[in-house]
Amino acid sequence: MRLEELPTPCLVLDRIVLEQNLEAMRTVARRHGVSLRPHLKTAKSVKVARLAFGDETGPITVSTLAEAEYFGRQGFGDITLAAGITPQKLGRAAALVETGVRLSVVTDDVAVAKSIGSHILGLRALIEIDSGEGRGGVAADSDALLEIGRALGQRLAGVLTHGGHSYACRTADCAADVAEQERRSVTRAADVLRAAGLSCEMVSIGSTPSVTHARALDGVTEVRPGVYMFGDLFQAEIGSCTREDIALTVLASVIGRRESENRILIDAGSLALSKDRSTAATDHDAGFGIVWGIDCEPVYGECRIERAYQEHGVATGDTSLPFEKIPVGTKVRVAPNHACLTAAAYDRYYVVEGGDEVVAIWDRINGW
Amino acid sequence: MRLEELPTPCLVLDRIVLEQNLEAMRTVARRHGVSLRPHLKTAKSVKVARLAFGDETGPITVSTLAEAEYFGRQGFGDITLAAGITPQKLGRAAALVETGVRLSVVTDDVAVAKSIGSHILGLRALIEIDSGEGRGGVAADSDALLEIGRALGQRLAGVLTHGGHSYACRTADCAADVAEQERRSVTRAADVLRAAGLSCEMVSIGSTPSVTHARALDGVTEVRPGVYMFGDLFQAEIGSCTREDIALTVLASVIGRRESENRILIDAGSLALSKDRSTAATDHDAGFGIVWGIDCEPVYGECRIERAYQEHGVATGDTSLPFEKIPVGTKVRVAPNHACLTAAAYDRYYVVEGGDEVVAIWDRINGW
Repeated sequence: MRLEELPTPCLVLDRIVLEQNLEAMRTVARRHGVSLRPHLKTAKSVKVARLAFGDETGPITVSTLAEAEYFGRQGFGDITLAAGITPQKLGRAAALVETGVRLSVVTDDVAVAKSIGSHILGLRALIEIDSGEGRGGVAADSDALLEIGRALGQRLAGVLTHGGHSYACRTADCAADVAEQERRSVTRAADVLRAAGLSCEMVSIGSTPSVTHARALDGVTEVRPGVYMFGDLFQAEIGSCTREDIALTVLASVIGRRESENRILIDAGSLALSKDRSTAATDHDAGFGIVWGIDCEPVYGECRIERAYQEHGVATGDTSLPFEKIPVGTKVRVAPNHACLTAAAYDRYYVVEGGDEVVAIWDRINGW
Repeated sequence: MRLEELPTPCLVLDRIVLEQNLEAMRTVARRHGVSLRPHLKTAKSVKVARLAFGDETGPITVSTLAEAEYFGRQGFGDITLAAGITPQKLGRAAALVETGVRLSVVTDDVAVAKSIGSHILGLRALIEIDSGEGRGGVAADSDALLEIGRALGQRLAGVLTHGGHSYACRTADCAADVAEQERRSVTRAADVLRAAGLSCEMVSIGSTPSVTHARALDGVTEVRPGVYMFGDLFQAEIGSCTREDIALTVLASVIGRRESENRILIDAGSLALSKDRSTAATDHDAGFGIVWGIDCEPVYGECRIERAYQEHGVATGDTSLPFEKIPVGTKVRVAPNHACLTAAAYDRYYVVEGGDEVVAIWDRINGW
């Protein structure tokens, strides 16, 4: 099957680029002597997860119970669920533990820590530390840290932070500074817990920009980047990758043309691409995505999706579009602003290896 | 089953409110003496579609071939696919026609019209008219109109426009003006086609705001509103409904609390809600959604989701939040900015009737 024959819109994943991205991050982790626990919230695919370990399984991070169950069923035996757990969700978590999965959940709440400490045999938990993002987590030097640690008792697996404020960086130096904030926060928290006689096996940080540019990770045991696998236009803008490193695109069809306005209409709109506008805050606002040719070459110049309706994308060229070569039905590839959100609209990847032949179809797990 | 027992995030649909919204639009259509061909791109559900006709089938509009196939399989025999078709998609369309469905596709392109005119037995097509939105369609008085009409020949079913620029309105009068633009455009196009000896059975307009507020629809045969079924915060802002008319909410759980910042963290982020920010351009910016109590009462004041991460929503109160009543695990209902995009993340509706008992589960068709 060739790309030309696929229904549109659909998701295309280039395995060659993917493998380069995976190897690059393995190299980073090796250089720092830390374990790589990739976050599968972007890929949500067992095939991709296995490739991250050279076609093996390994320790992974997930964002939903549905992902944890999916990867657990398919042989991934060491999983961290990195979004705050609730008491009501502990039943599903415990059921997964009973199948033999070593599952660690995350909390920053004393009452939840007590629930975990009291009744779920085998379930482990990490304490979430706020290293500057200001989303979730306790401060490394807060009273709450020890209180949560003591409530977890034997279930305490370690500490975890996500330096998501690295997304506000525009230079490698800035991302490296965030990595150092992450490192200091979790190693400080680990010291506090250990000094109180509590164990703290895992000392975990993560975000693609901060891990990519980290200077040193002394005291950190593992990193949890995710979007590095695919890359996207936003990551290219903030220096985590280049546009050539983007492994994930949306295959779309031209469904209308307006030569007088130098624009085309494609069948990828806000459902097929998401309404993410993260590149708006960068030097190269990509609208809702950039339109490339079917072979991912920028044959339309900087052709930007300016408006996104539910099933329509309006793309305008920065130079005159070659309308004689763009009849309705022409297939294009759209580079996404934010791979995690774009991918979530699809249940599968059509896999290519640089060319236009579809060599495999890989499934994805969506929902909760 | 009760709302408290559901996994979160999930989609909750209130059948009482839904039925009120459905009846209100039927009343509008009856008043104007036009046929109602609801757009199912929002609901994507056979159960909802049937309720739109008082638990019967009827003529419908869809936005994807996947929707057309889904509704066709379940007894909907008169379907308009209202996004520009490509020659490559005609095979799937024809296969649906062969099952007995009366399918009309849409085009504004001469070459596509020739493809339709030449080889798909039984498939009909509408010519898309631009009534001012500037997305797709030809002008009613353009040469292209007659050229497309002649290329379609016997396959010409009529003309269609979507006055999506009604979304820029903030008053009923403005939306009524858009309805009149829609009406003038399609009736003018129909006149031109008929004067040339071509048939033009369907004269179709649509958008929830314009249909809701239309003054008169002389010459129009049908209307295609969609989001009126569910309503949302944006539609409430532009006067298509009130907040009390919102039938669709996301059930979410509190997963973190920060009393010092008067905010809570919930497990509904940009995947569960979408990154739609349409209310940003209205008088009441709702962030990524408004957090209500589990019974849809505004018990947290105007509690707005200020930041949306993939699986985290950060909601801040405009008055002091009652933290003693909001432990981690508390369930809340989030009113969405844009129902179409929010619903697309889910494969089912948990249906309630005003209360907290789940009386049914209805499926949805996503993808393409």
